[in-house]
Amino acid sequence: MSILVVGSLALDSIETPFAHRERVLGGAASYFTTAASLYDQVNLVAIVGSDFPREHLDFWRKRGVDLAGLQIEEGQTFFWAGRYHLDMNTRDTLDTQLGVFGNFHPVVPASYRDSELLFLANIQPDLQMEVLQQVAGARLTVLDTMNLWIATTRPQLTEVMKRVDILLISEEEVRQYTEQPSILVGVRKFFELGLKYVVVKLGSYGALLFGRDGTYFSAPSYPLEEVIDPTGAGDAFGGGFLGYLSTTQPVSDGQYSVEDLKRAVVHGNIIGSYACSDFSIDALRNLTMRDVKQRYQELVRFSHFDPDWRG
Amino acid sequence: MSILVVGSLALDSIETPFAHRERVLGGAASYFTTAASLYDQVNLVAIVGSDFPREHLDFWRKRGVDLAGLQIEEGQTFFWAGRYHLDMNTRDTLDTQLGVFGNFHPVVPASYRDSELLFLANIQPDLQMEVLQQVAGARLTVLDTMNLWIATTRPQLTEVMKRVDILLISEEEVRQYTEQPSILVGVRKFFELGLKYVVVKLGSYGALLFGRDGTYFSAPSYPLEEVIDPTGAGDAFGGGFLGYLSTTQPVSDGQYSVEDLKRAVVHGNIIGSYACSDFSIDALRNLTMRDVKQRYQELVRFSHFDPDWRG
Repeated sequence: MSILVVGSLALDSIETPFAHRERVLGGAASYFTTAASLYDQVNLVAIVGSDFPREHLDFWRKRGVDLAGLQIEEGQTFFWAGRYHLDMNTRDTLDTQLGVFGNFHPVVPASYRDSELLFLANIQPDLQMEVLQQVAGARLTVLDTMNLWIATTRPQLTEVMKRVDILLISEEEVRQYTEQPSILVGVRKFFELGLKYVVVKLGSYGALLFGRDGTYFSAPSYPLEEVIDPTGAGDAFGGGFLGYLSTTQPVSDGQYSVEDLKRAVVHGNIIGSYACSDFSIDALRNLTMRDVKQRYQELVRFSHFDPDWRG
Repeated sequence: MSILVVGSLALDSIETPFAHRERVLGGAASYFTTAASLYDQVNLVAIVGSDFPREHLDFWRKRGVDLAGLQIEEGQTFFWAGRYHLDMNTRDTLDTQLGVFGNFHPVVPASYRDSELLFLANIQPDLQMEVLQQVAGARLTVLDTMNLWIATTRPQLTEVMKRVDILLISEEEVRQYTEQPSILVGVRKFFELGLKYVVVKLGSYGALLFGRDGTYFSAPSYPLEEVIDPTGAGDAFGGGFLGYLSTTQPVSDGQYSVEDLKRAVVHGNIIGSYACSDFSIDALRNLTMRDVKQRYQELVRFSHFDPDWRG
């Protein structure tokens, strides 16, 4: 199958308590594309400026990524600078320069229109809606977002939520959007909008899968000795999640088995763990399915316990 | 077998954003004793003042708890008042009155000396050491503590750690004691002291089991619609953990199988989840093994995924 993604490509300057990198490859679509292309064909819709290093495009081409939907415009690529606190969970934005991203309107090439899976990475909800309208026939649509859009463009975000199948969202964002202290109570508000599944990302604590049908699954995180840079971990999670689903057979149009959805969340956690192990997409560049398999088997050992009750 | 516990019995005044209770039964040993006595015989070492309601003692007697080691002294029972923040994870102490607890020196009755399992609930490390010295023959010793003792009595706490088998500790306390941002790196410092296992309590995210032998296990939390009062959840966790172990057969003296230790952590999470469902020990009062079994089987469904890799 093939996966269409729309999202940001950026150059990031990152400070952690232990190291510093200038203008490295960043943006939600960079992480997602690199991760998902490990599994299947990715069709990218995005924009960069004339300053964007061509080596990044060459890298994705080598991985079979279709760049027909990439706009290259005169001017600056989206730039973000951030600094992580000691706990590596919280960060401050030091600088944001939209550059050519400020005038972006995604155009989906005709050759992408038959993409079976659609990932709306974290960008303005209006742009996500523009893509949804151009790819009406996707079998499965998955949405990511962030606190900024919940705060500033809530009505537009809600309209996008009403039109997708699965939402990826952090625990704090569930509370922010639903104004409910309980995640279990909060996710019901999403199901009222029509969503089928909600994946709540818990960072270093793993992820939860909730289904409108009552499905509940708690996926363990992969334990890391050291987090080098958590930037893009959620986007890489999306790449592992959709990448895995793309390789499976839906039980009916757009309906995946709960067992496959659980496995997809585990893949998301594994790919997210790799993303944290280096700056930018560096830990994902040479990742192989053999590496993913090893962590999958480790996670089975790390999280399964005797299913038989002994009272 | 039988479980000896030493710890605080208290009267607590609790404020949450949604409700308020005055002078309800609290203290680490109250939660532990109530939880563990669901599984096995508990021998309690503690102190209360003459104001301590006799109904609490009657309740424990009915559950077969041995109170020969309970000192009842003229004066006030230990009193604590606290207020939870909106997130129900952080709290402020509003008042602490030690009362008779200020002069407490635990005395282990001769009839307790053959207790196979020993739980040193969260109290001053000096008092924990006094009990360790009186019960030299316990098959398994488990230690709980808190941030206060790490900050104020670190050398004494370290001496206790050197003499026990298993440490129960929160994630923040691991960082506080080891000064390591990484939990995986931090727990190694405990193994250097001689501990065999460390259980890291993650609150609403479950718990992690680390073994000096390389064991690693991530136990899911039981998902709660609503947290009424998280006070004592960690102590109740200890009661479920030791309670379950007490009913199992060690593979050799003081050595439990890794499978049983994993199950014990799951029991801890289940009992901890019940503790959060009401004020004081109220949700534990009428809890049955049938209830625990139901949550155990739910947690299997909620956390297990296809162990076979499909690449």
